[in-house]
Amino acid sequence: MDNPIGVFDSGVGGLTVAREIMRQLPGENLVYFGDTARVPYGSKSKNTVLKYSKQIVRFLQTKKVKAIVVACNTASALALDDIAKEIDIPIIGVVKPGAKMAVETTKTGNVGVIGTASTVKSGIYNDYIRELNSDVTVVSKACPLFVPLVEEGLIEDRVTDDIVSRYLQEMKEYNVDVLVLGCTHYPLIRNAIKRFMGDEVQLVNPAFETAKDLKELLVKEGMLNKSGAKPSYEYYVSDGVESFMSFADSVLPVHVGDTQVIDIESF
Amino acid sequence: MDNPIGVFDSGVGGLTVAREIMRQLPGENLVYFGDTARVPYGSKSKNTVLKYSKQIVRFLQTKKVKAIVVACNTASALALDDIAKEIDIPIIGVVKPGAKMAVETTKTGNVGVIGTASTVKSGIYNDYIRELNSDVTVVSKACPLFVPLVEEGLIEDRVTDDIVSRYLQEMKEYNVDVLVLGCTHYPLIRNAIKRFMGDEVQLVNPAFETAKDLKELLVKEGMLNKSGAKPSYEYYVSDGVESFMSFADSVLPVHVGDTQVIDIESF
Repeated sequence: MDNPIGVFDSGVGGLTVAREIMRQLPGENLVYFGDTARVPYGSKSKNTVLKYSKQIVRFLQTKKVKAIVVACNTASALALDDIAKEIDIPIIGVVKPGAKMAVETTKTGNVGVIGTASTVKSGIYNDYIRELNSDVTVVSKACPLFVPLVEEGLIEDRVTDDIVSRYLQEMKEYNVDVLVLGCTHYPLIRNAIKRFMGDEVQLVNPAFETAKDLKELLVKEGMLNKSGAKPSYEYYVSDGVESFMSFADSVLPVHVGDTQVIDIESF
Repeated sequence: MDNPIGVFDSGVGGLTVAREIMRQLPGENLVYFGDTARVPYGSKSKNTVLKYSKQIVRFLQTKKVKAIVVACNTASALALDDIAKEIDIPIIGVVKPGAKMAVETTKTGNVGVIGTASTVKSGIYNDYIRELNSDVTVVSKACPLFVPLVEEGLIEDRVTDDIVSRYLQEMKEYNVDVLVLGCTHYPLIRNAIKRFMGDEVQLVNPAFETAKDLKELLVKEGMLNKSGAKPSYEYYVSDGVESFMSFADSVLPVHVGDTQVIDIESF
């Protein structure tokens, strides 16, 4: 099946998920949509995130995608279940794969989860993790400054280190041995997070786990692209092509070619 | 004329403008709209900001406003002129009043302007200031982290001081004697900015100047509300009533009562 996989995010963060899919499924075609006009989702309500996500799914379906990856923790938390009921192609989010890995990895049973305000407020990582193992304790913390710091390029910077230490101090106090990076921007500052948390704490990157789960799903359903052709990658955004392309080029293993602006509200 | 004045912003920042209007025009009724679902505007393109602003103006007109204040530097920069051509009530933005005050205040002829990426990229402060006095040199600088820092409550904080010193170092090097706070959030960290820039640099708060200009306009056009009744203040947002109300209560001189959510995309 050479139909593309649709990947969407509130903006550029989901490119870390697209990157993992490109690495782990190098034969698949991709259509990426970043909702750069309406970013961020992390401070928006469930109603709004669901409405926006539905518009994006309708747009991706015009591209004949064979499966959809919700490469945004907030949309995975707030919209995935409702959308899954309405469409007849597989759709997976980043939360379940991350939650599963956290449960498999923890030895102490204390798992930390960091994300946007909306993801943390939704309690979804908590729900999934405790569904898998009710003995696990989840400590979660919203880190609203991480995204703007990453987008300002302060990846290795004393300010980022300072903010990391404030947000994550309580993770140390709760002795978590696994920390889920529950927002797609956070893997980009994993070094700063690792430095503060120390080597004994395992960081879970849901982007990596999601690509792994997607691969399993495509194999199981007989949906892998076996054409052997060079994969095609298409990029669509709702605003700001230039800044999208420059960020994408810094994240992806391939050069990002033409990116088109879509009037997403019309879908 | 007891029709209300419509005030809008991309989110909560415009409340600093509403605050100045409440202080300087205590007899006027206000309708405030904050586009909290689609905030921030500062990283969006002109097309998108214009489209959103037009929707908001249509909404405010359903409230029979007698005048509109665009309490958002980005929307003032990117959308005001186009909208002014299409409506038959007065509409003023925050940029012109701020630019005028900067020109009147500078002695050295070196004026600094700080704002969002879109406001700075638009060059609009530069254009207005040099229209008023072409001998003035304008140094402008985008400060994308200021808004998230304010919204995270880091008003008096070493991280904010650190970021202030990085963004504003070049303002010192250019010897500006006036600095325009060209984003409605920035007056909330004026102490940190003042500390770094020093007492010899005058800070211009466009919110204050805008309320002054609005008053002059209402007097001149005979549009003041002379009913003597207690003013009514109405608040509308596109998302997230709770966080809006808590921020509003920290900014406004009055307690914010009911705030309603509007489906702004339907206007």
